[in-house]
Amino acid sequence: MQVKVLRDILSANERIAMKNRRLFDEKGVFAINLMSSPGAGKTSLILETIRKLKDRVKIAVIEGDIASSLDAEKISKENVTALQINTGGSCHLDANMINNALESMSLEGTDLLIIENVGNLICPAEFALGVHRKVMISSIPEGDDKPYKYPLMFSEADAVLINKIDLLPYVEFDIANFSRGVRALNPRAKIIEVSCKTGQGIDNWVSWLSSQMKT
Amino acid sequence: MQVKVLRDILSANERIAMKNRRLFDEKGVFAINLMSSPGAGKTSLILETIRKLKDRVKIAVIEGDIASSLDAEKISKENVTALQINTGGSCHLDANMINNALESMSLEGTDLLIIENVGNLICPAEFALGVHRKVMISSIPEGDDKPYKYPLMFSEADAVLINKIDLLPYVEFDIANFSRGVRALNPRAKIIEVSCKTGQGIDNWVSWLSSQMKT
Repeated sequence: MQVKVLRDILSANERIAMKNRRLFDEKGVFAINLMSSPGAGKTSLILETIRKLKDRVKIAVIEGDIASSLDAEKISKENVTALQINTGGSCHLDANMINNALESMSLEGTDLLIIENVGNLICPAEFALGVHRKVMISSIPEGDDKPYKYPLMFSEADAVLINKIDLLPYVEFDIANFSRGVRALNPRAKIIEVSCKTGQGIDNWVSWLSSQMKT
Repeated sequence: MQVKVLRDILSANERIAMKNRRLFDEKGVFAINLMSSPGAGKTSLILETIRKLKDRVKIAVIEGDIASSLDAEKISKENVTALQINTGGSCHLDANMINNALESMSLEGTDLLIIENVGNLICPAEFALGVHRKVMISSIPEGDDKPYKYPLMFSEADAVLINKIDLLPYVEFDIANFSRGVRALNPRAKIIEVSCKTGQGIDNWVSWLSSQMKT
């Protein structure tokens, strides 16, 4: 019975995700679902992306968190529309939360919608939101074994960013072992090394993102 | 209906957790549930704890992961009984998984059972396992806003360890802001700064743990 309920929830979610996708496509909005562990750098990456792109791309952001509006406040300072969803305990965003959020934000003229999921390396990967690309961040201090221990998200991501590359001198992290783990699950994923602190690799990320928006 | 199912699952879990607790108490085993984000240092802390205590305390470990047996392999090298649970997708351990694991491991003579939960700052806090103490790790690179964004686990922990304190020179982290967030949720939690890499603070942790085992 528990399994059946879960299946029903997931397929209801898929239907709403398709509705979201149609809405994005009608409005000409390219949407991404940004996922990672807590504190891997999702908000920092969004801030860097806004700074690089805002002169030529109109960006909106949906922030998903269990509690607080700390992240939406940080984004709003960049003069970008930011809507905070508090899941009130739920460990992931779902398509319906996004559908509700879309009712209270105008996407007119928006080119890029970045949805920052709840910090969690597991459950967010199970729930489609209707986006065009899934992007995940794994950060150096988390260790290079993450693809082996949390395979689902890595297997679904269109791009895997390795953030906090500036900490490489201070932390043991074998990039070859990490990349091997990603490749085994997902040969096509783009792997990009970045540091939101020093700016290293951010141009590579922004250029990949821009190329995807054109396809 | 989904809500009712969830309530049923949680109360069934509570009943099995109480069974586990009785079993621990009958065998004289002190059990802790160790929780954190992925890569915050749970396995490293267990290794340090084993090295400090193994001459006077008989330790056993249950490792919870979505996939792989990497962590149990690391622990086994210390000549400590380590049992790996693969949750096969589930984002947390539950009381029944522990109950099943206890059937296949002998706790005779064991003083301390450390249960390493799945790396996740959200769901593990919702499921009682029957332990005597809940311990969580938050690490410097995750940022000082975590108590504000993921309140449940912080509000339940008997001890909150701040790990990777050796990275403080390279990462922005305001210990006062972090501790204020923990204190607002949980005034009694013991906060201990540690580095599993340099060994800083490990004696404080081990002495807190030993004091709890005596009560």
